[in-house]
Amino acid sequence: MKKQIITMALITIFSQFSIIPAFAQSGALSDELAAQADALGEKAINSNLGYEVVRSLTTEVGHRMVGSANDAKGVEWAVNKMKEYGFDRVWTEPVTVPNWHRGPISTARITAPFEHNMAVTALGSSVATPEDGITAEIVQFDEYKDLVDAAPGSLDGKIAYISLRMEDNGLKGYGYAGQGRRNGSVAAAKAGALAIIIRSIGTDDNRTPHTGSMSYQEGVKKIPAAAISNPDADLLDNVLSYGKPVTVSLKLTSHSHDPVTTYNVLGEITGTEEPEKTVVIGAHLDSWDEATGALDDGVGVGIMIATGKHIIDSGIKPKRSIRVLLFAAEEIGLLGAAEYVRAHKEDHKDFDNHILGAEWDSGTGNILSMTPGVGPMALNAVREMGKVLGPYGVAMNAENDAKGQSDMSRLGNAGMPAVNLISDDGYYMDYHHTPNDTLDKVDAEAMKQAVAVYSMFAWMAANMDVDYRK
Amino acid sequence: MKKQIITMALITIFSQFSIIPAFAQSGALSDELAAQADALGEKAINSNLGYEVVRSLTTEVGHRMVGSANDAKGVEWAVNKMKEYGFDRVWTEPVTVPNWHRGPISTARITAPFEHNMAVTALGSSVATPEDGITAEIVQFDEYKDLVDAAPGSLDGKIAYISLRMEDNGLKGYGYAGQGRRNGSVAAAKAGALAIIIRSIGTDDNRTPHTGSMSYQEGVKKIPAAAISNPDADLLDNVLSYGKPVTVSLKLTSHSHDPVTTYNVLGEITGTEEPEKTVVIGAHLDSWDEATGALDDGVGVGIMIATGKHIIDSGIKPKRSIRVLLFAAEEIGLLGAAEYVRAHKEDHKDFDNHILGAEWDSGTGNILSMTPGVGPMALNAVREMGKVLGPYGVAMNAENDAKGQSDMSRLGNAGMPAVNLISDDGYYMDYHHTPNDTLDKVDAEAMKQAVAVYSMFAWMAANMDVDYRK
Repeated sequence: MKKQIITMALITIFSQFSIIPAFAQSGALSDELAAQADALGEKAINSNLGYEVVRSLTTEVGHRMVGSANDAKGVEWAVNKMKEYGFDRVWTEPVTVPNWHRGPISTARITAPFEHNMAVTALGSSVATPEDGITAEIVQFDEYKDLVDAAPGSLDGKIAYISLRMEDNGLKGYGYAGQGRRNGSVAAAKAGALAIIIRSIGTDDNRTPHTGSMSYQEGVKKIPAAAISNPDADLLDNVLSYGKPVTVSLKLTSHSHDPVTTYNVLGEITGTEEPEKTVVIGAHLDSWDEATGALDDGVGVGIMIATGKHIIDSGIKPKRSIRVLLFAAEEIGLLGAAEYVRAHKEDHKDFDNHILGAEWDSGTGNILSMTPGVGPMALNAVREMGKVLGPYGVAMNAENDAKGQSDMSRLGNAGMPAVNLISDDGYYMDYHHTPNDTLDKVDAEAMKQAVAVYSMFAWMAANMDVDYRK
Repeated sequence: MKKQIITMALITIFSQFSIIPAFAQSGALSDELAAQADALGEKAINSNLGYEVVRSLTTEVGHRMVGSANDAKGVEWAVNKMKEYGFDRVWTEPVTVPNWHRGPISTARITAPFEHNMAVTALGSSVATPEDGITAEIVQFDEYKDLVDAAPGSLDGKIAYISLRMEDNGLKGYGYAGQGRRNGSVAAAKAGALAIIIRSIGTDDNRTPHTGSMSYQEGVKKIPAAAISNPDADLLDNVLSYGKPVTVSLKLTSHSHDPVTTYNVLGEITGTEEPEKTVVIGAHLDSWDEATGALDDGVGVGIMIATGKHIIDSGIKPKRSIRVLLFAAEEIGLLGAAEYVRAHKEDHKDFDNHILGAEWDSGTGNILSMTPGVGPMALNAVREMGKVLGPYGVAMNAENDAKGQSDMSRLGNAGMPAVNLISDDGYYMDYHHTPNDTLDKVDAEAMKQAVAVYSMFAWMAANMDVDYRK
C-alpha cells in the first residue's frame, strides 16, 4: 500500500485541564484493570485479525448495498462470524429500508462543442432519466449556494452542474462540499433544471466517481442526480472555458422498489456482574455497491469483531456486557441506528442501560486522539482510560462534547454517553464511495493499533465502576 | 497535481569520459549558437505553451484511437495547430492501419465460489467472446513463462490467468511484465484455453484496467484476451486462495473492420543553408481509447509543437530544417514509424538526410539525462550540446548507443543517428493505457523544462556543422 501513512510514532499529548468537579467519581481504574487492558492491547497490536476479518467480508460477500441480496449475505456472514468467534449471544434486529438500485447503465457524454464520454455514477436514491436520457445544455455553478440563488425558471430545460472542488480532506471539507450532493437536486429542480450533475465529493484524481446519498423534497419535482469523476469535471470545466454552449447527454437507469427488511447485527459478550449494562462498540455493515466497501466500513466491522474476539480469547469476562453493534443502512441516512434507538427506547426500554458507546466509520488510519462525551463526574475516569491508551498513540482532547461518530451519534443524541476515537483521515476521501474502495487500500498495520485501542477501551469501560451519564 | 515530482533541482553530472577520437569533428558550437540556445531555453522555461497544446488536444479532440473518427480529428487538429503556429510547411503522409474497436461491452464477473464484478478491458486487437460470454474455471499462473510451459490440452475448457504483479516502475519492469499481455494469448491457446485474463501491466491500485497491444500467431487459435484492474486481480487472488474452483464469466464485444488509412503529420521549419538536411523531433499522435491520451502521448505532442513554435517565434531560421514528426499508430506496433521509414527510404529516398532524431513518449516528468547514438567523430559535438543543456538539469550519460525512443527507434534502427532524452518515469505506469490518462495528470512545470530542452537541442542540432553519422 504505497500511500500508507505512518503515524504510529505520534507522541501522546495529554491536555492539562485539571478542573475536576469536587465530587468526581473515582476513576476506579485499578492496577489490575490497567494490566488487563495492557495485555489485551499487547495481544491485539501483534495480531492481524482485524484485517483478516475485512478480507473475509470483502472476499466472501463483496458489497453490502442496502436492500440488495448482498446486504442479506452480509448479515448472514456477520452472524456466522460472531458465532464462530464465540460471542455469548448473537442476534439480529429488523430495520425497514428503502430499496433503491443503481441499475445497469450510468452514462454521461459531452455532445457539444466537443465529444467526450465521462465517468459518472447515480447518486443514491436518484430517479432515472427517461429511457433515451436527457440531453441539454449545462449551466455551471461554482458552489451549491449559487445554485440555491438561481431564479425560478432560470434553468428551464437545462442541466445544472456544480463544479465545486473538495479541497479539505476531512469531515469539514466533506460536509461543505457535500451540500450540493445532498440537496442540489432540490435547488436545481426549483430553478427548473431537468437534472443535476456534480463534481465528485472526493480528493482523488481517478476516473472513479463518488456516489453518496441525496434527498428529494416533498412538493419539488424529483430530477435525476449524478456525480462525474474529478478528471471528468476538470475536462468539463475545460470545455466550458471555451465559452460556447456545452450540451451533455445523461442516462441513468436507477429504480426504487418497495421497502424491504434488513437487519442490525449484534454480538454480545455478557457481563458477569451487571449484564444488563452494556458498552456498545459499533460500525456499519452496509456499503455502497460500487466496490467491496473495504474502507467504508469494512475496516470498522473488522475492528469491532476482532475486538470482541480478543476479549473473548482473554478468558476473563467483563463485569458489564460488551456489545458489538453492526448497523444497517448507514449510507442512506443512519437508518439502522435510528431504528435501534427507537426499538431500544420504545420496545425494549433498555436504552438507559447503554452506558457508553464508540464507533468506527473513518476508513483506515491510526487513532490519534480521544474526545469523551460523558457526565462531568465521569470525566476523570475517562481520562484515566486515556492514560492507559496514551502509549498506543492516543492523545486526550480537552473537549467533553462527543456524541458518537456516524451511526453512534444517533445514540449519543438520544442520551447515551459516548467517546469519539479520532483517526488520521489519510487518503480516505480519495476512495470514499467509489469503485476504488477495495481491500488493497486497507492499512493492515493501522488496523492493529485500532483493534488494540478498541479492545482496551471496551474492556476498561465495561469494568470501571462509573456511571458515564453523571 | 498532488503527486507532482520535483526534480528540477538535480545537479548536472557530466561523465568524465574523455577518450575522443583524434580526428573528432569540431563541435562547432559557437558562443553565438550557445547564446541562441540559452535564449530559447529561457523563453521556453517561462512558457506554459506545451501544456496549453496538450490541453487543446485533449479537450478539443479527446482520444485518438487508431482508425477511429477521433484519430482523423486528431490529424486535422495537428495540421491546423501547426499551420496556425506558422510552420513553413505542414503535411500528412498516409499509413494503412488495422481497424479494431473495443465495442460497447467489456465485463468480467467471478461467478463462484463468491460473486464479484471485476473492472476489465479488452487488450488491443483481441477477438470478441461469443455473445453470451465465456464462463469457465480460472487456472492461475504466476508468470508468463509458467503459462508457456503448460502442456497442450492442460487448459482445455479453462480460462488462463496470469497474476504477475508489475513491480519495477520503469521500462524494464514494463517489458518483463508485458510479455504476458503481448504473447499470453498464444501461449494460453496452445494449451487449449478458451480465453486469457491478465493482471494489469501497471503500478497503481485503481480500478482502471490497463489496455495495450497483444498479438496472435498464424496457425494458433485466436482467443479473447483481457486485463483486469490491479485491485480486481488482488480480489481474484484472494478468492483463489480459498482453494475452491473459481469460475469467471468474461464478455468482450471487440471487433475488427477492414484496414483504413490514417496519417503521420509533419510540420517543418525550413533551413536556410541546407534545407534538405533535417533534424527530426517526434512524438505519437495516436492514443488508446479509454481516456484522452494526455500522458501517452499528448505530452510528447505538446512538447514537439511548442518547441517548433518557440523556434519560429525566435525570428531566426535554422541552417538545416527542423521537422516535428507526429507518428500515427504507435500503440499497435509503431506502424506509422515503420511506414515512415519505408516511404523515406524507398519512395522519397531522402532518409540519409535525416541527420539526427529524438522522441518523447515518456509521460510527464523532467528530463534527467541524455544518451547520444551518433558516429564516434560526432560525439564531441553532442557533448558540447550537453554542456549547454546541463544547467537545465540534463546530465550526459557515458554510453553512445541510443537508437531513438519509441517510434524514433524505427528510424534509429534504420541508420539515423539519435539522441535519447531520458526523463523521470514518475507515476507514468500508474496511468499508462488506462481511463486515468487525463490532463490533470500532466505536470505542467516539468513540461516547461522538457520544451526548453527540446528547443535548445533541436536548435543546436540543426545549426552545428556536424555529420552525426560519422
